[in-house]
Amino acid sequence: MQFMLNIDVKLPHELSDEERDGLRTRENKRAIELIRSGHLIHIWRCVGTTANFSVWEADSFEDLHKILQSLPMFPYMNIAVTPIMRHPVTEAYESA
Amino acid sequence: MQFMLNIDVKLPHELSDEERDGLRTRENKRAIELIRSGHLIHIWRCVGTTANFSVWEADSFEDLHKILQSLPMFPYMNIAVTPIMRHPVTEAYESA
Amino acid sequence: MQFMLNIDVKLPHELSDEERDGLRTRENKRAIELIRSGHLIHIWRCVGTTANFSVWEADSFEDLHKILQSLPMFPYMNIAVTPIMRHPVTEAYESA
Amino acid sequence: MQFMLNIDVKLPHELSDEERDGLRTRENKRAIELIRSGHLIHIWRCVGTTANFSVWEADSFEDLHKILQSLPMFPYMNIAVTPIMRHPVTEAYESA
Amino acid sequence: MQFMLNIDVKLPHELSDEERDGLRTRENKRAIELIRSGHLIHIWRCVGTTANFSVWEADSFEDLHKILQSLPMFPYMNIAVTPIMRHPVTEAYESA
Amino acid sequence: MQFMLNIDVKLPHELSDEERDGLRTRENKRAIELIRSGHLIHIWRCVGTTANFSVWEADSFEDLHKILQSLPMFPYMNIAVTPIMRHPVTEAYESA
Amino acid sequence: MQFMLNIDVKLPHELSDEERDGLRTRENKRAIELIRSGHLIHIWRCVGTTANFSVWEADSFEDLHKILQSLPMFPYMNIAVTPIMRHPVTEAYESA
Amino acid sequence: MQFMLNIDVKLPHELSDEERDGLRTRENKRAIELIRSGHLIHIWRCVGTTANFSVWEADSFEDLHKILQSLPMFPYMNIAVTPIMRHPVTEAYESA
Amino acid sequence: MQFMLNIDVKLPHELSDEERDGLRTRENKRAIELIRSGHLIHIWRCVGTTANFSVWEADSFEDLHKILQSLPMFPYMNIAVTPIMRHPVTEAYESA
Amino acid sequence: MQFMLNIDVKLPHELSDEERDGLRTRENKRAIELIRSGHLIHIWRCVGTTANFSVWEADSFEDLHKILQSLPMFPYMNIAVTPIMRHPVTEAYESA
Repeated sequence: MQFMLNIDVKLPHELSDEERDGLRTRENKRAIELIRSGHLIHIWRCVGTTANFSVWEADSFEDLHKILQSLPMFPYMNIAVTPIMRHPVTEAYESA
Repeated sequence: MQFMLNIDVKLPHELSDEERDGLRTRENKRAIELIRSGHLIHIWRCVGTTANFSVWEADSFEDLHKILQSLPMFPYMNIAVTPIMRHPVTEAYESA
Repeated sequence: MQFMLNIDVKLPHELSDEERDGLRTRENKRAIELIRSGHLIHIWRCVGTTANFSVWEADSFEDLHKILQSLPMFPYMNIAVTPIMRHPVTEAYESA
Repeated sequence: MQFMLNIDVKLPHELSDEERDGLRTRENKRAIELIRSGHLIHIWRCVGTTANFSVWEADSFEDLHKILQSLPMFPYMNIAVTPIMRHPVTEAYESA
Repeated sequence: MQFMLNIDVKLPHELSDEERDGLRTRENKRAIELIRSGHLIHIWRCVGTTANFSVWEADSFEDLHKILQSLPMFPYMNIAVTPIMRHPVTEAYESA
Repeated sequence: MQFMLNIDVKLPHELSDEERDGLRTRENKRAIELIRSGHLIHIWRCVGTTANFSVWEADSFEDLHKILQSLPMFPYMNIAVTPIMRHPVTEAYESA
Repeated sequence: MQFMLNIDVKLPHELSDEERDGLRTRENKRAIELIRSGHLIHIWRCVGTTANFSVWEADSFEDLHKILQSLPMFPYMNIAVTPIMRHPVTEAYESA
Repeated sequence: MQFMLNIDVKLPHELSDEERDGLRTRENKRAIELIRSGHLIHIWRCVGTTANFSVWEADSFEDLHKILQSLPMFPYMNIAVTPIMRHPVTEAYESA
Repeated sequence: MQFMLNIDVKLPHELSDEERDGLRTRENKRAIELIRSGHLIHIWRCVGTTANFSVWEADSFEDLHKILQSLPMFPYMNIAVTPIMRHPVTEAYESA
Repeated sequence: MQFMLNIDVKLPHELSDEERDGLRTRENKRAIELIRSGHLIHIWRCVGTTANFSVWEADSFEDLHKILQSLPMFPYMNIAVTPIMRHPVTEAYESA
């Protein structure tokens, strides 16, 4: 099953440049693993901001929660989770 | 270029069942045309609501606007448009 | 898997008393069927309002969506869907 | 009588990892006591976030307030309290 | 136990003057009964608006809900319910 | 004349436990004085939160403002002030 | 004592042009009476909108409420009432 | 031309008492100059809060902006600017 | 002096197609006159919506208000008015 | 293609005066470069605030994002991005 996430990241001003760079490197590395494992299906940067839209696949809610908690930037994320499903238009298109 | 749209449809209570059915049939037909023409890339139903998330491809802003205006339900839609782009994580993944 | 729903019902003023009563009777009947089928697990009235909190069980997002659409008052509902899961405290309690 | 609570926890960034772990351990311990005493009836994690929905039983408002204040993380919680009651659908189901 | 209610009344424009007057007469009559029965403890008009603050006493949530539903203007009310209790300052004052 | 106040207190995390206790002691002392002087008529704790509803009597706006500024926790309060008056229902009740 | 009011007027679309003109004529006439009686001290149009800011003088809250209710457009107004008083800067200016 | 401003001042908790007092003294002094120069026409304290409503006269937008920036507390102000003009009621009153 | 306006137009569902077309024709004609007279400096459609951003020049607030009121769709517009001025960056650019 | 941006800048209180001045100097220098390169088409200060409206030209979303990220104050900006296009009124004006 799939989820649309709208994630906004706000790093606290107190973090040093090194801490930020370290966080970003670890965040990217973890995200790539999740693309490889088939959990992170799509991710788009919202132009001009630090937010993104992303589509996630998970076998269960527990699965999704564990995955998100494994992101190094999770403590600094504001996450809106929307369960999504195929739209009737897609089915109509495929059967046409 | 691509856009994430969050569209919520609110049909006025005054519409008869026939008018609603007619609208839905024409809306579906037009949406299928737009999938075929490569403009409507993804569309997901938000579970339990009348809203959807959808990803659109257009050559220009004028193009996107004309396409949305061509939807029979456009007058009843509340549309939030977010310009989106590839996320750095996708590039890191592809080059890895 | 389970979902917390916060549903607010706003019937349009134009409905006659008969239409309202008919809707309520059919809504109740359908809700009882969904309790019996194990889909509607909990439902509470929010005191002093026309809203409720309810916990739903469904095998899939498609399943939940079909169930909600089958409610006679669905066109008049404003529904907030939150995916929920066991809280770590529950597990700690059970293993204790 | 029962209450639906929507609790969001925001720990300040200044807390050390030790302070966080200590808080979590004490919070879990207290929550388990409250499950045992029959005050905390249900608790669900909102998937992907640090928030929860929970149903509480208390003999009085004073009782509920004292219980919530006894939670070690209370100073960091944003709590929405909704008084809830049996929904007419439940009664219709039971009498059917 | 007691509740602070903030009630805003919005009568639909379609009501005739007679219907409004009838509603107001019946609303006042019912409110006076509820003052007499000890359920409506305080009620204040918010100056310059159609809203009020009011303090209600009820033996149970079911009791409060039934009382509010018995108000002839209930279908036109937007009600915010806040459970309230004695403030520690009151106790300190009384024991002083 | 009377005012309904909804006051939410947010003490900054930086305060030491001693500073908090000191503030609370002085706040309580001042509040008791204001009950005695007939300015603080009612005060209720909003269950499960750090907010309160309170009814104040003052001879003038200047009077009310000075009183509120004299509260030791004033700098940490978010205050919503609503001028209130007798509701027509109360008059109808008294003349009945 | 004085009040700052922010009033937004929304006439329902159903009113005929005659009804609107009649309302406006009566509203203006009543407003002029209230300027003459010293209750309406200042009134400014918010540029480009149907809203206004206005300063009112009244002997009591009951007085202000009665005055506002006497406005023919009162049923179509959304009114925000803020109690105001002399600012310390004015006193400093006058004593300087 | 004139402007209605709604200004809320939030001094950061980190400021020492001396810094606050210094700021207030300089703020008052500058405000008095602006009353004298005919720029600050009216200013009212919103009862029970740190906000004010004020009416400003300026020859141009650049003029108003420079004036506001010259206030010592400008960096701590949240300012809402509404262009205002004579209300038709005032003209009707004067010509009557 | 100049103003940024964000205008959203919501035509009521009750208007017939002819009334809508008539309104649009008259609106366009009036807007062209205002471009010619130098009052409407810029206007942009917000992609995918019925809203626009526009920059207006006017000699006075009264002037701007009269112009906006002369738009045939004015009764159906929600207008946010922001006074704007040259940004320091423009001056730095021109003097460089 | 063009974008309307509404940018609000909030510098953290912790920055020293030197850091602020340095930031402003670099921000201005970068903005002037972007005016010269034809990316920053218009920029207006919102009177009385630290916000601005600005119109940007970019060849692609990636282009716009890179440009915004190159602004020294980007980490302290809250940016709302609205894709904009020629309004039909402009075309009607030009063809008239």
